[in-house]
Amino acid sequence: MRVGIIGAGRIGKVHIRNISLFVPELEIKTVADVFANEQTEAYAAQFGIKNVTKNADDIFNDPEIEAVAICSSTDTHSKYIIEAAKAGKHCFCEKPIDYDLKKVHEAIDAAKKAGIRLQVGFCRRFDHNHRAVYDMVRAGKIGKPHIIKISSRDPEPPPIAYVKVSGGIFYDMAIHDFDMARFLAGDEVEEVFAAGAVLVDPAIGEAGDVDTAVVTLKFKGGTIAVIDNSRRAVYGYDQRVEVFGDKGVAMNGNDIPNTATFADANGTVGGTAFQVMWDRYEQAFVSEMKAFAKAIVNNEETPVTVEDGLYPVLMAAAATKSCKEGRPVKISEVDV
Amino acid sequence: MRVGIIGAGRIGKVHIRNISLFVPELEIKTVADVFANEQTEAYAAQFGIKNVTKNADDIFNDPEIEAVAICSSTDTHSKYIIEAAKAGKHCFCEKPIDYDLKKVHEAIDAAKKAGIRLQVGFCRRFDHNHRAVYDMVRAGKIGKPHIIKISSRDPEPPPIAYVKVSGGIFYDMAIHDFDMARFLAGDEVEEVFAAGAVLVDPAIGEAGDVDTAVVTLKFKGGTIAVIDNSRRAVYGYDQRVEVFGDKGVAMNGNDIPNTATFADANGTVGGTAFQVMWDRYEQAFVSEMKAFAKAIVNNEETPVTVEDGLYPVLMAAAATKSCKEGRPVKISEVDV
Amino acid sequence: MRVGIIGAGRIGKVHIRNISLFVPELEIKTVADVFANEQTEAYAAQFGIKNVTKNADDIFNDPEIEAVAICSSTDTHSKYIIEAAKAGKHCFCEKPIDYDLKKVHEAIDAAKKAGIRLQVGFCRRFDHNHRAVYDMVRAGKIGKPHIIKISSRDPEPPPIAYVKVSGGIFYDMAIHDFDMARFLAGDEVEEVFAAGAVLVDPAIGEAGDVDTAVVTLKFKGGTIAVIDNSRRAVYGYDQRVEVFGDKGVAMNGNDIPNTATFADANGTVGGTAFQVMWDRYEQAFVSEMKAFAKAIVNNEETPVTVEDGLYPVLMAAAATKSCKEGRPVKISEVDV
Amino acid sequence: MRVGIIGAGRIGKVHIRNISLFVPELEIKTVADVFANEQTEAYAAQFGIKNVTKNADDIFNDPEIEAVAICSSTDTHSKYIIEAAKAGKHCFCEKPIDYDLKKVHEAIDAAKKAGIRLQVGFCRRFDHNHRAVYDMVRAGKIGKPHIIKISSRDPEPPPIAYVKVSGGIFYDMAIHDFDMARFLAGDEVEEVFAAGAVLVDPAIGEAGDVDTAVVTLKFKGGTIAVIDNSRRAVYGYDQRVEVFGDKGVAMNGNDIPNTATFADANGTVGGTAFQVMWDRYEQAFVSEMKAFAKAIVNNEETPVTVEDGLYPVLMAAAATKSCKEGRPVKISEVDV
Repeated sequence: MRVGIIGAGRIGKVHIRNISLFVPELEIKTVADVFANEQTEAYAAQFGIKNVTKNADDIFNDPEIEAVAICSSTDTHSKYIIEAAKAGKHCFCEKPIDYDLKKVHEAIDAAKKAGIRLQVGFCRRFDHNHRAVYDMVRAGKIGKPHIIKISSRDPEPPPIAYVKVSGGIFYDMAIHDFDMARFLAGDEVEEVFAAGAVLVDPAIGEAGDVDTAVVTLKFKGGTIAVIDNSRRAVYGYDQRVEVFGDKGVAMNGNDIPNTATFADANGTVGGTAFQVMWDRYEQAFVSEMKAFAKAIVNNEETPVTVEDGLYPVLMAAAATKSCKEGRPVKISEVDV
Repeated sequence: MRVGIIGAGRIGKVHIRNISLFVPELEIKTVADVFANEQTEAYAAQFGIKNVTKNADDIFNDPEIEAVAICSSTDTHSKYIIEAAKAGKHCFCEKPIDYDLKKVHEAIDAAKKAGIRLQVGFCRRFDHNHRAVYDMVRAGKIGKPHIIKISSRDPEPPPIAYVKVSGGIFYDMAIHDFDMARFLAGDEVEEVFAAGAVLVDPAIGEAGDVDTAVVTLKFKGGTIAVIDNSRRAVYGYDQRVEVFGDKGVAMNGNDIPNTATFADANGTVGGTAFQVMWDRYEQAFVSEMKAFAKAIVNNEETPVTVEDGLYPVLMAAAATKSCKEGRPVKISEVDV
Repeated sequence: MRVGIIGAGRIGKVHIRNISLFVPELEIKTVADVFANEQTEAYAAQFGIKNVTKNADDIFNDPEIEAVAICSSTDTHSKYIIEAAKAGKHCFCEKPIDYDLKKVHEAIDAAKKAGIRLQVGFCRRFDHNHRAVYDMVRAGKIGKPHIIKISSRDPEPPPIAYVKVSGGIFYDMAIHDFDMARFLAGDEVEEVFAAGAVLVDPAIGEAGDVDTAVVTLKFKGGTIAVIDNSRRAVYGYDQRVEVFGDKGVAMNGNDIPNTATFADANGTVGGTAFQVMWDRYEQAFVSEMKAFAKAIVNNEETPVTVEDGLYPVLMAAAATKSCKEGRPVKISEVDV
Repeated sequence: MRVGIIGAGRIGKVHIRNISLFVPELEIKTVADVFANEQTEAYAAQFGIKNVTKNADDIFNDPEIEAVAICSSTDTHSKYIIEAAKAGKHCFCEKPIDYDLKKVHEAIDAAKKAGIRLQVGFCRRFDHNHRAVYDMVRAGKIGKPHIIKISSRDPEPPPIAYVKVSGGIFYDMAIHDFDMARFLAGDEVEEVFAAGAVLVDPAIGEAGDVDTAVVTLKFKGGTIAVIDNSRRAVYGYDQRVEVFGDKGVAMNGNDIPNTATFADANGTVGGTAFQVMWDRYEQAFVSEMKAFAKAIVNNEETPVTVEDGLYPVLMAAAATKSCKEGRPVKISEVDV
């Protein structure tokens, strides 16, 4: 099946490489990027891709291309989904669909109406550790989830310029955790309470955002989840989940590059965390694309659905409002 | 230094044994229990204690006795603290001082006025694992605390009859965690948000309580803490703390009776948790009493102070109110 | 049941304290030590023991005393066992019975003939971690043992003066591991191969001993065990066992004082090992004495038998010979 | 740089895939396999390789090809190395070079004389966990190695037909561990003592081999290493190393697919080991080939040298002799 890639920045390059090397079901015919240049062409050529264009329409208008991966900037996601829907092409779209709920709904509606498949890039669902916890939960090992705990901390905050346009920590960073909480709970959130603070960098506060947050989620079925986020963990990526239920608890440790330890009189030292996101989730990026390929080739539901694209944005909206107003906010308050 | 024990129930017996075996600085002269009987005498005799009485005044009026350990039912704590203050005797008092904030203040005021030392039985401060995390935090290793996480789960809910008079999960169970959060943060809480649910046993809900809770604490200095509680962890006691700061993170694992593991094709199995609280905190009960003895013998501040007796009760009051009203509650709202 | 303690040095004091505090079935009537002085009396008095003597016969001749704990220097063990046997008193004897196999046999024969119970102080059998592995093995979880691995390393070598009279690393240090190997295997050793080196301190080599050793044991039933010893692990006590069989593997980690860890950019640090043997095996010393008390009070076989006193000495003899001669040595070669 | 692959069985296919996907410095021009068929061609075609032949000479005679990867059966390794040497082509050769020491020497001599580079496929040197331990040792963190421990256990024995021609457990399985011991020690072995037993399957014994072994290695510099091997660990691959020295200890845990754990009243369960070698060492196979490419492209020494191809075979010869004769065997006894 032939596919087109829209956007050849950092994440676009990762998907180009991964599809080329590891997803034999898909063949990239065309790469479109508004800033496409010789370097883009050289990168594509490495993987035998000859068509590089500045115009995404070269993809949408190509009848040979059956699916697109939207890896462009967030503000263009919904627009491209709608164009893909019109052209009848399946979509893999990086998260989030949009920060504007109206646009999210429009994109989802277009996709549904056109009957195209749409998978949002919540790659952490495919991480070997998180997935193993999820599998235990879905297999019923822990029974009904009572408490879900997610720690999600980044090594470094993004540049302030980015923070200003990022939509804030809840849209930009916690959105992965909102997806993970729903994924693990198998239920929808009713109410969100977000406590935020500026403890990492005052400039983040001046930009109107927080850099440290604890978010409590009340699910419809009674499950309570709590997410803690920090923009800077000096020890590197820290991503752990825990699901506690009436039959037991499932959890994972933080993923680390190796298990080697060293002990002397100062203690036992080991387990430096990953410092680079691409290393931390290398396997997950491959796995999500394999899953997308499998779904569209076999004409099956994608493992991340259009609703999965909507709800984390609703949760981010509720968390942002809760953090600002200092009160719990219901999901029903923020949907449009 | 001679001491008297008031209350010879389960926890009183633990303190009688521990003082007799492990705290050579203290000698128990008298044990008072309103239900004292032959069994009480036999238990005391094991440790060479000859005086067993039904009347606590036999302790308060004995000029040889310099300190008392109050191990009677919670509703009598504040009364006995006030009597001890009048008699000029130092107090070790089981937690909490009272559920009624007015009584807590009266007891504390009496103790302060009389100049007696008062240590509240927050034994977990003395647990080897929690203490090791605390020591790292106090040594400045993690820098300023940004996020504190406490998981605190019991193996089994108490009988419903007890639940009804317990004051609720926040006074009865989370109070240890409120103390731990303050202890680790080195700061006071400003606002509390408690999300609660009845997921373990509907009878707990009918008794007006919750059995599952996630409590978010905002500290004055910006630290955010989150506590998760459950009345029933099928795998046994689960007590873990984590303090994340700008220089690193300190945490402990759950304490387990041994490190032995077994592996076969089904995985690696190990680490059954403690099932009985007295086993889980055996060392902590000894250590807190040694610390009390050291403080009063050397005329030093006790490691748990009168204020440490007050604030967790304030936090429990705020959490209870927050859970009922579904909104964050400031500590200033609940103090009397 | 009244008991006497012979030898009030370091290990004698530990047993005096443990019996007094934790073993209510036994009452220490008399402590005998050839160097007994005021300090000995003061130590005994702390635990309410009034009789302190320089003459062990005061114990052997006392009809009220039914058992003795022999905690004197190794060269006196067999003599005192024989005297105890004559006097019809049960014996707890510190390890080893003797370095001289002839004396070991004489002591064991005397004990058997007199029908007294004799427990040798292989305390590690009672360590919570080692015992948990043993329990899994005995419960059949790992099936038949194929490979047993024991790491046993001390924080510091003993003084050279002691090394010279210690009988060497195999009698002095590895003897615990020889006992542990038999205990875990549930079988007897046929052949021993010991590779030794002087890597820690040349003075140990000059004293005729090695400080680093790897010992391979072939058991009659086919199990192969390997022990590695070092006189100096800079990180503290390191004591781990592993039993691998046809149905699985059971192992323990090294015991550490607490589970707290700290992570920063340099890695995750945790788990300083114990530095002092008395801390490392504190619980094991108590448990072995409780087990001895239970056995003699209930007139049952002791959990460490007279044969258990013999075989580790045979293994030490074979290991010493093997290390010197550079060849495997059969147990049958060294027995007398 | 163009390369040829000789042998397209299981391991050959792995190298074809890895070179094609992950080693851009190398381009596979030709695949030779005596049993080459349509399937071989289809496999090669997947990776854009057009030349598939039954005749290895098509590679040796091709002046465009600068290096070969020898992935054919062990008995052909030395022959192909010699041919590659004659043709002036660098070699990557699967382990071992041969079981016959004379042939090993001939191959090594030919390679040396011709000045070609020769890397033997000891892939475990490139495993992330083992490498991390190695890096710590080489960085001097543990000081001088005193004791090295290697556990190396396979999930299942090979078929008896293979056991009969495998050269035995020491040539076939332990050879990786012999290489690892030298690699970690940074020294050469002087003497080997191997204790073996037939505990897994009597048919292995009937085939003249053992299935369980403990091998002690004495290094020239005094380091003692011990390797334990089993043909069947029911829990899957178990590969751990530990290097203990005068400044500390470095070790790794067994590599497992994920860190997820589950706890209930039966304990904490986690960490199923890998069941398939190709999964366990997937990254190591890629890394060793990248290292080979880097060496030959940059005209540098390969990270596994010709001597590294010789010594493990010497150790296997000594271990086999030691196990049979029941005595320690010096390396000098077995070299030809």
